Order: sequence, then C-alpha cells, then structure tokens
Amino acid sequence: MDTEIGSGDCLAWAARDASGILSPYRFNRRHEIVGVVTEVGSNVKGFKVGDHAGVGTYVNSCGECEYCNDFLEVHCSKGSIFTFNGLDSDGTITKGGYSSYIIVKERYCYMIPDGYPLAMAAPLLCAGITVYTPMMRHKMNQPGKSLGVIGLGGLGHMAVKFGKAFGLKVTVFSTSKSKKEEALKLLGADKFVISSDQQQMESMTKSLDFIVDTASGDHPFDPYMSLLKIGGVLVLVGFPSEVRLNPGSLNLGSRSISGSLPGGTKETQAMLEFCAANKVYPEIELINIQYVNEALERLVKRDVKFRFVIDIKNSLK
Amino acid sequence: MDTEIGSGDCLAWAARDASGILSPYRFNRRHEIVGVVTEVGSNVKGFKVGDHAGVGTYVNSCGECEYCNDFLEVHCSKGSIFTFNGLDSDGTITKGGYSSYIIVKERYCYMIPDGYPLAMAAPLLCAGITVYTPMMRHKMNQPGKSLGVIGLGGLGHMAVKFGKAFGLKVTVFSTSKSKKEEALKLLGADKFVISSDQQQMESMTKSLDFIVDTASGDHPFDPYMSLLKIGGVLVLVGFPSEVRLNPGSLNLGSRSISGSLPGGTKETQAMLEFCAANKVYPEIELINIQYVNEALERLVKRDVKFRFVIDIKNSLK
Repeated sequence: MDTEIGSGDCLAWAARDASGILSPYRFNRRHEIVGVVTEVGSNVKGFKVGDHAGVGTYVNSCGECEYCNDFLEVHCSKGSIFTFNGLDSDGTITKGGYSSYIIVKERYCYMIPDGYPLAMAAPLLCAGITVYTPMMRHKMNQPGKSLGVIGLGGLGHMAVKFGKAFGLKVTVFSTSKSKKEEALKLLGADKFVISSDQQQMESMTKSLDFIVDTASGDHPFDPYMSLLKIGGVLVLVGFPSEVRLNPGSLNLGSRSISGSLPGGTKETQAMLEFCAANKVYPEIELINIQYVNEALERLVKRDVKFRFVIDIKNSLK
Repeated sequence: MDTEIGSGDCLAWAARDASGILSPYRFNRRHEIVGVVTEVGSNVKGFKVGDHAGVGTYVNSCGECEYCNDFLEVHCSKGSIFTFNGLDSDGTITKGGYSSYIIVKERYCYMIPDGYPLAMAAPLLCAGITVYTPMMRHKMNQPGKSLGVIGLGGLGHMAVKFGKAFGLKVTVFSTSKSKKEEALKLLGADKFVISSDQQQMESMTKSLDFIVDTASGDHPFDPYMSLLKIGGVLVLVGFPSEVRLNPGSLNLGSRSISGSLPGGTKETQAMLEFCAANKVYPEIELINIQYVNEALERLVKRDVKFRFVIDIKNSLK
C-alpha cells in the first residue's frame, strides 16, 4: 500500500473516517464515500493530509478516450471501474466504502468544500450527481420554470432540493399520501400530487417544463408526458423494467424522454461547490454499522428519510 | 370571397396554379400547397400579386397564446386549424389543396424564394419542415457530425438531403435492399445499412450523434438506440403503434428519444430560404390529376421517388 501511495497519483483516506451508504434501492451500494485524507502520493497536487475528500460510483477509467477527455469518465469507452466489485487495472477487485481505508487516484477524488458537513456530502456522490447531471444537461437551472419530481426516495428528494435551489416551482408526484408533509414542509416543494388521482393529474396538463422520474418500479409514462409543456423533457434516472409510450406522447408535444447516469469528475466537483454555496444538504440519518440490519429492515419498509449514512469511524471505536 | 380579401389580412392564390400532394403515407394529405398569388387583402404587407406562395399543414391559430407568440403556431393552445377538414374560426371547413383556389391569412402563407422550382417547394411544407424542425432543435446542423436516417420515404429522403446540406455524415437504414442505390447515388448518403443485418448493425454501435426515425411501421427501438453515441438523440417523426424501450437504452448512454411535429411559421420560412440558398430540392414526380388513381396504386406498392405533386393548373386545362 505504501508503494502505491509513494508511486504517484493516489491518496489514502483515514480508514475509520469513511462513511458508507445504504441506498434505499440496493442495500449494498456503498459507493457514496467520504473521509479525511491521511496520506497523499508524491504526484498528488490538489489534496493534502487532513482534507475532506469523497469518491463516487467509479474509481478509475482509461483516461484517454473521447469521453474521458471530455471529463465524462463514467461513460469511458473501455468502461469505468466501479467503486465496488469492479476489476481495477491492477487486477484487484474494488471494495467500496465498507472498508478500513480506500486508496483512489486523485482524478476520481472530490474535494468536499470547507464547512460542508462531511456525512451529508456522501449522498451527493451518487444520488445527488445522478439527478444534478441531467438537470444541468437539460437546462433545468432556469429560475421560474416548473419541475415535476416522480418518487421521493434518495434521488427524488435531491431533485426537489436542487429544483428549489435553481429557483424552480417544484411539484412532487407520489403514490403515497404519507409523503405529502415531508415533500412540502421538510423539502420545500410547492405542490404535492397523488399520482393515482386522475383529476389532480389532469389539472396539471401541459404545466411542467421538466420532470425528473426517479421511480424504479414499473409505472405508466403517458400520463406524465401529458403534463409536460410543448418541448418538455422527462428525465429517467430509475430503472423500471421497460419504458412504453404512445408515440403521440412524444410527437404531439415535441416532447423528449431522456436517460442519465451520474456525471463525470468535473461536474461532480462543480455540484459539490454548488451545494456548499447554496446550502443544499441531503437529508440523512447517521447510524453505526451495528444498526445496519435494522436499517435494512426499515429500507424494505421505505422507512428512511432519505439516506442512511454509516459512521464507520465511530462504529469501530 | 371578395369581401374576405377586401377585409384584411388574407391573400388568394390562382385557383389552378395550386399543387396538391399525394403523401406516401396518407393519400389525402393535400396540405403541401403552392401557387401564384392572384389577389391580396388591403392589410397584406409581405405578398403581392404574382408572388409564389405556399401553405403547409395549418391555416389558422389563435394568434395570442404563448405558443403562437413564440411562432410555434402548430402547437397553439386552442389548436391550430388544419389545412383540410379543419373547422376554421369563421365556421367553414377547410378544403386543402385539391381546390380551385385557396384563401389564407398572411401569417400562415410562406414566400417561395425567387427561382426555387414551384412544384418542388410543395413537399417542403410538410415532409420537409417535419424533419427540418427537430434537426434544428437538436442542433443537427453541425458539420462533421453523424446522422442515421431510418426509412426512406417522403420524410426520410428529406432528412438525408438536409443532413448532407448541414455537412453531416449520413447513414440510411432500410429494410429494403432496393433502396440502396437511390440512397447512395440519388440522395448522396454516405452509407446504407439493411436494418435486419445484425452484423452490419452491431458494427455501428455508438457511432451516430443523431438519428431521425421516419418509419411509421412498428419496429424495435433498442437496436437503434445502441447505435447512438453517449448523449445521442433519436427523433421520432413517424407514428408507429407504440414506442417500447429498455430503460438501459436511455440511461446507460444518457440518450434521448424525442418526438416532433412540423415547425411554426417563422421556422418554415427559414427552411424555405435555407433550401433555396443551399439548393436542397425534394425529389418529385409531377403528375396530372387524371393520373391520380394509378399514382395511388403505385403509392401502395411504395413505387414513388419520393413525392407525387399534382399539377392542378395543367390538369384543368
């Protein structure tokens, strides 16, 4: 390990400062990781010991294809190396955030801005960037425009927070009435709609500029497409089993449906800075690793607001 | 009729100079109309008797909603009035291009540029603008980028022509080998792919920036989406019975599928000027109305390159 650090462009983080993440969708995601730097390689320029650093869903890429050159490393032609269970270029299997330490090339490390609460930064590195990236690509950062957010889990709650930070009018669509209060009061959404209420849905026809669809369960798309204004965009960030549409839902309103993955390294760093400057903080519940089985049971029951963050350091004391 | 002309903002075209259109998809489309102006209302500013004028798929709209204000009249909140079989604001039913004359408000008339062959201008007013509009909206006019065109009918052949005029590398996808020669030689496409040839299709993975999909028959979308580069866009202008996709086709490459209708009045006029400046001419076969039944039989057999235009004036001599 020392050799790797000594050899170049990697940095190591304090083993027990790293925080892993329980995703509401996949328990074992563990690729939203933050910690304090304990050691830096001789070629590392942007980090020093003591800095707060983070790593997201990938820890390596070829670094020379057209997508890497455009800082879209997640789309690397040779495949980006996932943060856990990925085969890295040195033949090792990546281990993710439930680890005593992590060593990552500088390019794939993010600087957590000064004063940003460390544990809160973790969910930004997958949930946050997964919605921030398409919101920026589709120019959703125009104050006064209207945004619909489908689903209010880890991703959905970040879409609401970014929407409000961008100055949008935000409507949350959910199948569950129980989300109403947290949508409006906790997250500051402007409107809450039960998606099974046809009358409420129809009253919003052609009223939205954008929709961020975070629902991973199967759901119809046509009713949501009809809520978009002419030229509106629905961005899909979940993975339902299929997307099925009436072509008129696209053609008649010149509307689009677009997919997305987390962003590249440059955009991830920009997002962190945006969040610090605009006080955008994910809602988290900080737990010890000893609580993890109970947390999993609660995840299955959707009883989480909105991300569990595991405090590995304190867990190991 | 005189009263209408006298009262304002309409112009009349020489009855027998109007050309109707047989679409390869719907015989009775008759909303690609050109002719020579014979009379203008007192408030008409942009046209005079003798000008070459055209009208497309709509002849009226409310003129005051957000979409009309943005010159997106086809998307008028109250509904644009179709050029045939539409209920106009004066209570009359619109008759389209198989008419002795047509009277249209100036706003919905287009000036055919000097020297542009009149009969060739007709197909621009639906087929042309239907592909030009999304090509402009999705910035397909960037020289050097790559375009796929699915289907080679009236719309597809215009997508190829615009693609070449924009400086794109154009690949045509067709189910029919018989289209190869006309795609490459007549229309100047760079490449021709039989879409049922899996090997040829796979060799093009992640190679296209854009696809214009003009196929109205049912067809799978996933194989085409995989040909798009990261961030690529497939624009649908046909009306298959449904659009069904694997979400990964969108998410994993941050790709989009987008629908479109013909453009507004400002963009239609801009397209006509682009076509004149860049010598973009639809391929047409000029016929007399007496040939119309034979033409219909040929349309059913897809034996048309690529639009029939009816010369009403000479037909009635």
